Amino acid sequence: MNYDLIIIGAGPAALTASIYASRYKINHIIVGELPGGLMSEAHKICNFPSEIEISGFDLTMKMKAHVDSFGTEFVMDKATSVEKASDGFRVKTVSNKEFSAPTILLAAGTVHRHLGLPEESRFVGHGLSYCATCDAMFYKDKTAAVIGAGNSAMTAALYLAEVANKVYIVARGSELMGEVVWMDQVKNNPKIEVIANTSVVGLAGDNKLETIKLSQPYNGNDILAVDGLFVEIGSAPDTAWLGNLELKAEASGYLIVQPDHSTSQPGIWAAGDITNGSNGLRQVVTACAEGAIAAGAIFKHLQQKR
Amino acid sequence: MNYDLIIIGAGPAALTASIYASRYKINHIIVGELPGGLMSEAHKICNFPSEIEISGFDLTMKMKAHVDSFGTEFVMDKATSVEKASDGFRVKTVSNKEFSAPTILLAAGTVHRHLGLPEESRFVGHGLSYCATCDAMFYKDKTAAVIGAGNSAMTAALYLAEVANKVYIVARGSELMGEVVWMDQVKNNPKIEVIANTSVVGLAGDNKLETIKLSQPYNGNDILAVDGLFVEIGSAPDTAWLGNLELKAEASGYLIVQPDHSTSQPGIWAAGDITNGSNGLRQVVTACAEGAIAAGAIFKHLQQKR
Repeated sequence: MNYDLIIIGAGPAALTASIYASRYKINHIIVGELPGGLMSEAHKICNFPSEIEISGFDLTMKMKAHVDSFGTEFVMDKATSVEKASDGFRVKTVSNKEFSAPTILLAAGTVHRHLGLPEESRFVGHGLSYCATCDAMFYKDKTAAVIGAGNSAMTAALYLAEVANKVYIVARGSELMGEVVWMDQVKNNPKIEVIANTSVVGLAGDNKLETIKLSQPYNGNDILAVDGLFVEIGSAPDTAWLGNLELKAEASGYLIVQPDHSTSQPGIWAAGDITNGSNGLRQVVTACAEGAIAAGAIFKHLQQKR
Repeated sequence: MNYDLIIIGAGPAALTASIYASRYKINHIIVGELPGGLMSEAHKICNFPSEIEISGFDLTMKMKAHVDSFGTEFVMDKATSVEKASDGFRVKTVSNKEFSAPTILLAAGTVHRHLGLPEESRFVGHGLSYCATCDAMFYKDKTAAVIGAGNSAMTAALYLAEVANKVYIVARGSELMGEVVWMDQVKNNPKIEVIANTSVVGLAGDNKLETIKLSQPYNGNDILAVDGLFVEIGSAPDTAWLGNLELKAEASGYLIVQPDHSTSQPGIWAAGDITNGSNGLRQVVTACAEGAIAAGAIFKHLQQKR
């Protein structure tokens, strides 16, 4: 075995678990694609307790600096499989690296949910985006639409409204749902218009997205001209590649964890948005706490094995 | 009812719950004795994910500034009772203030455990302390002893060793227990000496503490001369004053909470060190997460009642 622990993922749960593991002197490695994970894409984080307002990028850098202060090895790579080995697990990555350890922490988070429209993949990067923080600047003085009704959709719309001329929020239900602060800001922003009880059922354009088709007419027309479309309909846990481990999960895919954040597979723990923990709140601070709890439990487990 | 929610306590769980409550626009108040609670006494916090190293005081100030950015009312006072009222609860304080609300969040944390020796109270402030961060400076170039074996005892000893000439750690068991980082630092610090398998069974001195009596001789003598004694034998949840509510608790006193951090009393939630949550890890970051989870659940509860 190369390590005592392999942390898969690089978001707040993974980074905090690494900090705790370092303080416990657990010999470990982080294997993750993007430091900060989805947190790094957040335009503004306004509910991390020690920061009144901070960008996801800056909060990522603060946590990453903490991880790096211990000299922890960070492999920027995507894990593609976790397989049982004689006395632990073997993790393989997309670039054909291989690591082994007796314990694994799954902190791979979630991936953006897609619309499921046949034309969707064709327009990604050509008018369609899953990340307002990344791509809003392309729509300066233009018209953008956001699909969704939750906090992510509202914050995406508010950020877009800082640069775009006009922002539509297309919501399936009759109202927006989430923090009241965001709802108030959306309501009071003259650039934002909410199209309720409506889905997007089609995408059209030549080289780039030009119009979206609505499930019912809005102002007498079911075709809406937009320069950009931001899909903010939530996220789903990134567990499809773990099928061989037969981890117990909720119907929605979130991994079921015990109070110590162990999964149904001995030797594998999970923390952050990938789990059913923290009463489903899925915040940066709850991901951090889950990472700390899992690292504490893994430390006890490794001590007992000695 | 004066408010929608009364938060009792002022540590990281209470402050984070207030931040979330403000973002949910829950009309609430914080009733607590000391901003930051026990966190504010910590000399160094080295495992809060976004700070490599920060004093408890500075981390408290950062969270308090976030709370204050919403203009939330903070009553620096000690709650002495929570009583059921017609449509909620009435909270009374030591200075005879009274507040009422349909929901309560208990985040009163823990209090330092005492030795239980008859002479103990006489020496508090006269050589005996429960807070190294507060009082270590009184022992510059002197001899101090720390009672305890966990992280708090080790960090207290390390801090004392920065100013004192000599620091004993008197530990009941055969070894220290906690983060390996602290154990290594204690072992490598020439000023610190660990007296294992030993309890302190008596305190003596005229106007101030002068000697402690050990349960067995150390270097041939069961009387140890010390200028200062720091009691770091853990904390217990501050729940004695809540007896009338018949909240379900563990034998150790920690309040039993559900995944949404509700207690056995409808309308009352609990978060932070006072609960059995977070697998008993009781860290600043887990307290913060518990506060966020409770605030989210209280928001849903209040919305359903409307």
